[in-house]
Amino acid sequence: MIDKTFYKNNGPFTLAQIAKITGAVLTDESKARTKIKEIATMEKAGADDICFFYDRKAKEKAANIKAKACITNDDLKTWIPYGVIVLVCPDPKQAFLRLNQAFYAEYEPSAGIDASAQIDKSAKIGKNCFIGAHVVIEENVIIGDNCRLEAGCVVTRGCKIGNNCRIGANAYISYCIMGNDCYIYSGTRIGCDGFGFNFENGRHVRIPQIGRVIIGNDVEVGANTCIDRGALDDTVIGDGCRIDNLVQIAHNDKLGRGCVIVSQTGIAGSCTFGDYVVCGGQSGFADHLMVGSGAQIAAQSGVMRDIEPGAVVMGSPTVPFKDFMRQVAFLQRNSKK
Amino acid sequence: MIDKTFYKNNGPFTLAQIAKITGAVLTDESKARTKIKEIATMEKAGADDICFFYDRKAKEKAANIKAKACITNDDLKTWIPYGVIVLVCPDPKQAFLRLNQAFYAEYEPSAGIDASAQIDKSAKIGKNCFIGAHVVIEENVIIGDNCRLEAGCVVTRGCKIGNNCRIGANAYISYCIMGNDCYIYSGTRIGCDGFGFNFENGRHVRIPQIGRVIIGNDVEVGANTCIDRGALDDTVIGDGCRIDNLVQIAHNDKLGRGCVIVSQTGIAGSCTFGDYVVCGGQSGFADHLMVGSGAQIAAQSGVMRDIEPGAVVMGSPTVPFKDFMRQVAFLQRNSKK
Amino acid sequence: MIDKTFYKNNGPFTLAQIAKITGAVLTDESKARTKIKEIATMEKAGADDICFFYDRKAKEKAANIKAKACITNDDLKTWIPYGVIVLVCPDPKQAFLRLNQAFYAEYEPSAGIDASAQIDKSAKIGKNCFIGAHVVIEENVIIGDNCRLEAGCVVTRGCKIGNNCRIGANAYISYCIMGNDCYIYSGTRIGCDGFGFNFENGRHVRIPQIGRVIIGNDVEVGANTCIDRGALDDTVIGDGCRIDNLVQIAHNDKLGRGCVIVSQTGIAGSCTFGDYVVCGGQSGFADHLMVGSGAQIAAQSGVMRDIEPGAVVMGSPTVPFKDFMRQVAFLQRNSKK
Repeated sequence: MIDKTFYKNNGPFTLAQIAKITGAVLTDESKARTKIKEIATMEKAGADDICFFYDRKAKEKAANIKAKACITNDDLKTWIPYGVIVLVCPDPKQAFLRLNQAFYAEYEPSAGIDASAQIDKSAKIGKNCFIGAHVVIEENVIIGDNCRLEAGCVVTRGCKIGNNCRIGANAYISYCIMGNDCYIYSGTRIGCDGFGFNFENGRHVRIPQIGRVIIGNDVEVGANTCIDRGALDDTVIGDGCRIDNLVQIAHNDKLGRGCVIVSQTGIAGSCTFGDYVVCGGQSGFADHLMVGSGAQIAAQSGVMRDIEPGAVVMGSPTVPFKDFMRQVAFLQRNSKK
Repeated sequence: MIDKTFYKNNGPFTLAQIAKITGAVLTDESKARTKIKEIATMEKAGADDICFFYDRKAKEKAANIKAKACITNDDLKTWIPYGVIVLVCPDPKQAFLRLNQAFYAEYEPSAGIDASAQIDKSAKIGKNCFIGAHVVIEENVIIGDNCRLEAGCVVTRGCKIGNNCRIGANAYISYCIMGNDCYIYSGTRIGCDGFGFNFENGRHVRIPQIGRVIIGNDVEVGANTCIDRGALDDTVIGDGCRIDNLVQIAHNDKLGRGCVIVSQTGIAGSCTFGDYVVCGGQSGFADHLMVGSGAQIAAQSGVMRDIEPGAVVMGSPTVPFKDFMRQVAFLQRNSKK
Repeated sequence: MIDKTFYKNNGPFTLAQIAKITGAVLTDESKARTKIKEIATMEKAGADDICFFYDRKAKEKAANIKAKACITNDDLKTWIPYGVIVLVCPDPKQAFLRLNQAFYAEYEPSAGIDASAQIDKSAKIGKNCFIGAHVVIEENVIIGDNCRLEAGCVVTRGCKIGNNCRIGANAYISYCIMGNDCYIYSGTRIGCDGFGFNFENGRHVRIPQIGRVIIGNDVEVGANTCIDRGALDDTVIGDGCRIDNLVQIAHNDKLGRGCVIVSQTGIAGSCTFGDYVVCGGQSGFADHLMVGSGAQIAAQSGVMRDIEPGAVVMGSPTVPFKDFMRQVAFLQRNSKK
């Protein structure tokens, strides 16, 4: 049961309503008025709940469903036990998402500026913003409408933040131009100095970092992730990118649209990614690499060379996925002799 | 010498007192009244100090001890030079811990609520708590007795924190139910949105994350670590777990009791760990894995399959420890031809 | 063009001035009075700009330079197209650094203490310091002259910070003695408890951590990096070290002078590094290792044994760089059969 302390429940919904929200077809129309109180997992769903089944690997769980109803697809519906009301649609995962959005909502803070926030007089704040306790907004910052700046976050001099953005608690935004609909998580560091030095007489002399971080629209940047600003040119995060927690993105990196960067990935400086690149967790990239659109880099990979568009690679250093699997098999087979 | 600016020294203690505190036997009873002023390492201990010797690998250091006294075990005592007073016990490391606890203490802040803290009227704070400067506590939060919330930490709406908990400076606690005796370090992010999206028409649509983070009793979570809240179900950290710095724990992960997760480990979503699992530093886990109780995963391992209880594995992808060592030897031997 | 919102432009400069600042020789003296308005990359530099060419790999970019002038070295100057004014010096990268420093400057905050900062009466703050909004400085802290403590950072009881230091927003400094000219980035955690436990009756009992973190002069510590304090002895960071973002440095580690630790590296406890050790990104070190001066450890390496001074190693576990490359070639060659 979803905890009402944390989330509002807009239910109950009838199965007829649920069919409409999700686009799923109710296989037994006589149940149209049956009420559903909660969404739950296949294991936990009970007599008032609905669950979702879309991964064939979970078919044993499906056989034990005790939910009132289940949304699945045409292929998988035969696994659902007798007595559970079945709704069918082509993409049950999307149906889950739609029903989830309809059923539950987080508590959003009301618009308003906390008295403890420190906002420079020259800063411009849009309409309908929430500015939390101890937030700091420096000179000449411009923030759009409907933004939510959570407790203790810091936005430094001159930054521009678009509409409908959310900046997490204790996050740090500096030297940054951000589009609309972005969500920067708690503790994220944007715009710190890049790691650039020149070695002179036994000392690492800092190369001034005088670029920015340009973040597109509809970007998410996970908790405690770091995106350094450019050295001379800018660091750029394309529209629609999804960046997970504890990721390192170095100076001058340029990510195309819709890239997905899983947790603890590290991208050294001046890399250029195409669109929809996917990086598995803990993958690492040497500097100055080109990574083509649609490339998929497996978790823990170490990328030392450019990657072709659409390539699927793995290993450290990376090789094509099939070669990696062959190397693993070869090693296992031969090392035991 | 332990810095008195930072730690209180409750000493000096006589060797008789030290024998009592640690359970070690003083081999020369005539020294019972000898006073000890400090604990120090074998290298640094001087004429007023006591040191500990429990690792055979350090026997050369032991031979050069200049301390007044040394606690060791029966096997190792022959390495201690003549003139150093020897105390013997079966577990000198535990004796070190006990004496350390008796000798030194950190300065604890006095109970009280800093005037700059922002605490919602609906929040309940237990007895004898320290609430530091600029702390933020939102609606309906419940905090137990004897808690210490350090400067700038943020506890969001509805969270429950048990007794005797410590929340580090600038940490962020959200969507969380926490037991007693927990210690969350500075900068840790608990309860942020899990990394879950559905790809629709070229866009990664966020799947609402409506679970919680359930933390048991006696849990430590290191600095700048991230534990995401569950998607539908909860993320669960069992009693007695020890999690190091910069670790990533994703949505729906469930850790049993007493697990030890070393720094920079990353655990993808929906993994289930048994009890007393040990993960070496920088190890990584794919999603939806089962890891059996007592399993040990070496540093930098990449876990792609379920792990049996008690297994000791290494490598990326992981293999049994002995197989890994064989693979390393095979590669070194054959690649040089 | 460098964004004037974020950086001051001290230009324009004439080529004569630029020659003087950089030590480069203007090959066509008739251009001494030509004015330059901006520094830019080879790709972006236009008719009023100067660029730099010092990496042979970029020779195709050099051939397309549209800048007014370019600084390069004697070997590379032939690649610069006709019409671009050429300046020559032995080290164009250093020239870039010098001109960058002369041309641009960040906006520094004026000295002063924000009214929202919480500073204990016993703390001593040097001359000409900037103490930002919501900063917390506890009992007996001593801070030198010309320091900059950014919004929301926390300096706990008894810490000493030298002159000319910068502490980033929401950073946490505890149990620390810091030299002059240090720069600690936003979100960095210094002096948290080391990860040390003794297993007793099914419980991991914390070993009190009663050491400090000693940071030398001219040290940089990147964003969201963690440096734990010593258990009994101190954790020590030598003069001139450069530590990148999201690095883990455990209790009792000792780094010599001028070490460079790239992002996401993890160093387990009680390691001792010589001077000028370089660690590539995501490298990992087991505990109690000795790493000799000048050693270079490649990215993603896993170091399980001591490293000789000057050694260049790679792999997990590490081997000499040439051996690693041989292993990679061997595997690729043989696994395809």
